[in-house]
Amino acid sequence: MSVTQPARKPRGRQFFANPGPTNIPDSVLLATAHQTVDFNDPNFIEVYDACVAGLKRVLKTTQGLFLYTGSGHAAWEASLVNLLSPGDRILILESGYFSISWANMAKDLGIEVQSVAADWRRGVDMAAVRAALAADTAHGIKALCVVHNETATGMMIPIPEVRAALDATGHPALLLADTISSLGSLDFRMDEWGVDACVGGSQKGLMLPTGMSFTGVSAKAMEAHKTSRLPKHYFNWTNMLARPHRSFVGTVPVSFFYGLQQSLRLIEQEEGLENVFARHTRLGRAVRAAVQHWSGNDGPQLFCLNPGRYSDSVTAILMPEGLNADALRSVALQRFNLSLGGGLGPLGGKVFRIGHLGDLNEPMILGTLATVELAMKVAGVPHAPGGVAAAIDALA
Amino acid sequence: MSVTQPARKPRGRQFFANPGPTNIPDSVLLATAHQTVDFNDPNFIEVYDACVAGLKRVLKTTQGLFLYTGSGHAAWEASLVNLLSPGDRILILESGYFSISWANMAKDLGIEVQSVAADWRRGVDMAAVRAALAADTAHGIKALCVVHNETATGMMIPIPEVRAALDATGHPALLLADTISSLGSLDFRMDEWGVDACVGGSQKGLMLPTGMSFTGVSAKAMEAHKTSRLPKHYFNWTNMLARPHRSFVGTVPVSFFYGLQQSLRLIEQEEGLENVFARHTRLGRAVRAAVQHWSGNDGPQLFCLNPGRYSDSVTAILMPEGLNADALRSVALQRFNLSLGGGLGPLGGKVFRIGHLGDLNEPMILGTLATVELAMKVAGVPHAPGGVAAAIDALA
Amino acid sequence: MSVTQPARKPRGRQFFANPGPTNIPDSVLLATAHQTVDFNDPNFIEVYDACVAGLKRVLKTTQGLFLYTGSGHAAWEASLVNLLSPGDRILILESGYFSISWANMAKDLGIEVQSVAADWRRGVDMAAVRAALAADTAHGIKALCVVHNETATGMMIPIPEVRAALDATGHPALLLADTISSLGSLDFRMDEWGVDACVGGSQKGLMLPTGMSFTGVSAKAMEAHKTSRLPKHYFNWTNMLARPHRSFVGTVPVSFFYGLQQSLRLIEQEEGLENVFARHTRLGRAVRAAVQHWSGNDGPQLFCLNPGRYSDSVTAILMPEGLNADALRSVALQRFNLSLGGGLGPLGGKVFRIGHLGDLNEPMILGTLATVELAMKVAGVPHAPGGVAAAIDALA
Amino acid sequence: MSVTQPARKPRGRQFFANPGPTNIPDSVLLATAHQTVDFNDPNFIEVYDACVAGLKRVLKTTQGLFLYTGSGHAAWEASLVNLLSPGDRILILESGYFSISWANMAKDLGIEVQSVAADWRRGVDMAAVRAALAADTAHGIKALCVVHNETATGMMIPIPEVRAALDATGHPALLLADTISSLGSLDFRMDEWGVDACVGGSQKGLMLPTGMSFTGVSAKAMEAHKTSRLPKHYFNWTNMLARPHRSFVGTVPVSFFYGLQQSLRLIEQEEGLENVFARHTRLGRAVRAAVQHWSGNDGPQLFCLNPGRYSDSVTAILMPEGLNADALRSVALQRFNLSLGGGLGPLGGKVFRIGHLGDLNEPMILGTLATVELAMKVAGVPHAPGGVAAAIDALA
Repeated sequence: MSVTQPARKPRGRQFFANPGPTNIPDSVLLATAHQTVDFNDPNFIEVYDACVAGLKRVLKTTQGLFLYTGSGHAAWEASLVNLLSPGDRILILESGYFSISWANMAKDLGIEVQSVAADWRRGVDMAAVRAALAADTAHGIKALCVVHNETATGMMIPIPEVRAALDATGHPALLLADTISSLGSLDFRMDEWGVDACVGGSQKGLMLPTGMSFTGVSAKAMEAHKTSRLPKHYFNWTNMLARPHRSFVGTVPVSFFYGLQQSLRLIEQEEGLENVFARHTRLGRAVRAAVQHWSGNDGPQLFCLNPGRYSDSVTAILMPEGLNADALRSVALQRFNLSLGGGLGPLGGKVFRIGHLGDLNEPMILGTLATVELAMKVAGVPHAPGGVAAAIDALA
Repeated sequence: MSVTQPARKPRGRQFFANPGPTNIPDSVLLATAHQTVDFNDPNFIEVYDACVAGLKRVLKTTQGLFLYTGSGHAAWEASLVNLLSPGDRILILESGYFSISWANMAKDLGIEVQSVAADWRRGVDMAAVRAALAADTAHGIKALCVVHNETATGMMIPIPEVRAALDATGHPALLLADTISSLGSLDFRMDEWGVDACVGGSQKGLMLPTGMSFTGVSAKAMEAHKTSRLPKHYFNWTNMLARPHRSFVGTVPVSFFYGLQQSLRLIEQEEGLENVFARHTRLGRAVRAAVQHWSGNDGPQLFCLNPGRYSDSVTAILMPEGLNADALRSVALQRFNLSLGGGLGPLGGKVFRIGHLGDLNEPMILGTLATVELAMKVAGVPHAPGGVAAAIDALA
Repeated sequence: MSVTQPARKPRGRQFFANPGPTNIPDSVLLATAHQTVDFNDPNFIEVYDACVAGLKRVLKTTQGLFLYTGSGHAAWEASLVNLLSPGDRILILESGYFSISWANMAKDLGIEVQSVAADWRRGVDMAAVRAALAADTAHGIKALCVVHNETATGMMIPIPEVRAALDATGHPALLLADTISSLGSLDFRMDEWGVDACVGGSQKGLMLPTGMSFTGVSAKAMEAHKTSRLPKHYFNWTNMLARPHRSFVGTVPVSFFYGLQQSLRLIEQEEGLENVFARHTRLGRAVRAAVQHWSGNDGPQLFCLNPGRYSDSVTAILMPEGLNADALRSVALQRFNLSLGGGLGPLGGKVFRIGHLGDLNEPMILGTLATVELAMKVAGVPHAPGGVAAAIDALA
Repeated sequence: MSVTQPARKPRGRQFFANPGPTNIPDSVLLATAHQTVDFNDPNFIEVYDACVAGLKRVLKTTQGLFLYTGSGHAAWEASLVNLLSPGDRILILESGYFSISWANMAKDLGIEVQSVAADWRRGVDMAAVRAALAADTAHGIKALCVVHNETATGMMIPIPEVRAALDATGHPALLLADTISSLGSLDFRMDEWGVDACVGGSQKGLMLPTGMSFTGVSAKAMEAHKTSRLPKHYFNWTNMLARPHRSFVGTVPVSFFYGLQQSLRLIEQEEGLENVFARHTRLGRAVRAAVQHWSGNDGPQLFCLNPGRYSDSVTAILMPEGLNADALRSVALQRFNLSLGGGLGPLGGKVFRIGHLGDLNEPMILGTLATVELAMKVAGVPHAPGGVAAAIDALA
């Protein structure tokens, strides 16, 4: 290794601008490093109960909550198997890679999937959603599934508009929302928005390691659960209600709760949930200001073409025609220790993504943007220099 | 709070003599407190691959391995849904609470369950196993399920004898083994013993937090998987093989791998796997020596009446008639900060359990036994004093 | 390495029964792993001020406090150089290795040392102290130095009796007390007992790593400081008073304060200082009960022959004639991962020491005692078996 | 607290651009959180010895090394008291706040101090150094003290030029160098450069918490030590040589060694010491490029006017006339969680300082610079915008 070629592991903390999992605050990491305790110990139960209550406040619900030892996909699967029966039909609003994955999961589980197609750069047309619901006069659609914030494209779908489409058509389908990359970063209001089941994970806005996920469940969904016939045990809410914790099947993953306790403290007491949202808005704007500036010179551009649906937690950036996003990501990672997200599915190599959610502040986001600019320069990606200055202006 | 009444949280480290989850070494805890990394980062993939290879060495297999973000129950469910179809029949060897739970899970998933009943204090009769297999001339039994080490009763079932029963009857059923509380503590040899699928978790002999589990899978089992028709997605091995990690569906829980890397280093390099087993044998004997001494005076006795099947990782202790185990456990926990395991299912209140697996040594086990003796004295549980001295003799 | 010979690093947590440094609670260790902060940051100053206030409460003083980046010896040196001038005479009450070390330090610094000799197994005779003071009619003795709890011999010297000797003789000497192995374990009352300077460290009852020490300073001592002429800068209290923190010269070691904040929370809020003392009393008695039992059969015996001066934080144990304590310690450490303290100075090889201070509870102390008994058995040290049972009786 | 006003503790990791203490890598922080061990335990001694050997490699010496539980000032004091006698004269090369502090310390200890005055923005004139030495024909100067890297002004003094001055004048004075903010960041070669005693601390380039410091000692210095008569005990090298560790007086601070072991692994094995220096050079240039750009518009400018002496580990930045650096620092800290260094002594309020040493990479330094630019904009400090772009150019 020559002295002038920086090593693969340059000194200094890795900048993690991947949309998920995301940065974990030191105090949360250290809280998770808690020695083992009995999950039935009354002292732990106190911590557990406080976490469940706090999580409901973040979901803005007073209804049900079930937790899983599992990743976000586990919570997706739990929401389907607990609410549906073989052959049931669901309507999925296409948003990108993750809506398609959810649809594929449903098919694997024996559910019939109907989709509302969408231009990934603009997001689903609400008129098309209403039309699909209105056409289902037999109410064969048992559930409507929407990804609140599509992590693959950096697009936010307004849930209240989806709710309105259900209400306008008088359709009784359950409303299921994936809040994995929005919860704790963007405003989400389960009860006010009439969401029947929402799916979240530990590893994004809650700033925890990957491994715990959960579903908020409305009273209406609990009714639907009673007649659901998809086979289930590990994810079965009825099994869970029979246990002291009224959640989980099997061992409770105690370390996540010590982490969550600290994470909730940071979110609710130290910063305040509404301030968390405001910070994400501020930082999201700064990122977009930089990208819009770079695009001036045939440079990379925002993938999302719908300003009303910009995501404040993740930005997908479309490379100039013919240039590979992964080559740029590799320069950022190998030379400068900056981890950027890649394109998923059909967007592989075409976009890169900046995650700006969770434990983040101005120096971190500016450092990320400046290093992207540096990497573009090194990699020969055309762009209008000065994106960082545009971000600084947006933040000042 | 009066000065002479010790607080609920007495100073000093909690003694955790619960059979699971179990003690986590400091160095493993700190290793899990690793900052987030991209699970597709080549640096992480190196760690990941080394962990998978090490885990196979611990399983003593060169065949397949699938990992899950989930607890041990997730791995149970994965083993069933990946190998079976609706209406398939399995034979479960009754051993205690966990064999019954596994059976209940199978039923919930639409599998027909046949059981070989057993006296919980002596364990299943191998002749009865052979008889059940021999009687199934139509080979309707697709899989035989056995819990290698029944955590609820402190009994170890010799897998080679089960394999011999299958071989003797020429029965083609798959052999499924739950190694959750044995792996990394007691000798287990997947390939040599002809196990087709074995289920393990992070939180016992591997000395990690709860949240990751896995299944070792034989070539024969992979064949069976191809025709399995139980619905599945999150646990689907075929889905996993299509991913770069050839395991997991969804986000990979990176923190567990940093912990596992350290745990494998402790097990394989620092102590040596065979030394780990020898230590468990030594400590298990000491625990039983103490309990057998205590029993002399109408005191608590070993629940397991079959010396050939004593578990070296957990001991269940039957209280004298009419005395509640949970009252004793409460004294141990509240006054002396010693966490003991309780009785499960029908054994609730009748037994308490000492976990002696994972990160454990002589002072820890002697401190546990001495504190149990202290708690019996304080709680007025009859016993022959001097159990610790018997354990010391066993260890000298 | 054979399977039956346990490795040098047996699995399981090391039992640390050394009288210092001592066990650090996990939560304190993790608190010290705090990222760097500016020691002038107002957020840190809040933590700092709260720690200084808490430390004064533990010292039971409302007077001055100076902190050092240094070990306990640094605080010793600071107490001397800040109060004395070249050629000044001090009176040191002999108690063991540490009183002699303090005397040697004083001589190195140009101070004249007068000692009150003592039988190390009985401690200084207060009549001899009074006599020495009474004989000093010219008041040439500027300071009287006493080790509150002699860590080398397991003996506690009652400070109020020393104060009484000064008062009875009307001697104006400053009273200096080394509280290194007593503070936070045994009751100590700086103001009530009329101590002018007391020396403490981070690594014993305060349950922190080694590296920070401090001196409580009375108003009378501050007066004496003004005329002190021993050269000093790093330890100079006057320099410290000119700084914003009113302590330290040079960089403030911030990590210790995050640890101390947590340690004070444990001591004051979770357990209560008086409960801490009561626990040390209880555990100290149990240790002595075991040793007294062992001694029955020409076994090891308590080094301290003065029951009124037994230390509740450390017990020194005298080996039977002709047997080497270090051989026994080696068995305990090498085979069973129990770290015992050795004999210091002339007691090297003749005594071993059990530290029972700081983060400790019944299972820890019983595990220690049982393992000592196991090691004696293995090493062939004569003793009356059953010491653990005696300790259990003492604790029940 | 209004939603739009960010809280005092904005989410996201604090950017710590203070020149010391400096950022501590996560792996080092976690390594220091090691449970207590006996500092005489052979397992610890192995770690200890490896650390001492590694530290000598970083110092580029094969001569002596003494360690202290103490901060950098402790090592300063140790170097003086171990080498000098009351009334001895030393020559200190003025460089800024820290050279003056060292001089004041020497005076407090009874040493006569002669200074070579210097323009703080240009550094000492080597001709003046030579002249002072040449004038001292009686060789009354016992030691020449130089700060290798003056942290207060961001100026590096070339030690070989100082050595050359001594050699050219045939002056036998000992050469003492303060390497506190250079060691492990800038090249330093104790033996090759003929340094007799060099002073370093844990909390800068070695990336450890504050609390351990040390002195490299040449054979010539060890000779001088033998006749030194300043009173000393805690810092006395002779006392240290009599101990098993051949360093320290009193308890050895074990936690620092577990951290140092990891720190040396990062420096030597993961990155390579020469690569560490190259990285500091690269990042230092980037910082200066930004500052020089900002200065264009009557903005802040580099304090150091001597390009040959620019420090690659810290940059002091002079505010425009009439503007208070601390007001700018407050905006950076309060609104953006960026901690900048302040001006020391006469430079208070006039300069702010960016530390760019230790655990640092491109994203961190660019994030720092961009946030300084943002803070200047918010605080109304005139500057030529685009400093970050200049830094990007310097790094590309």
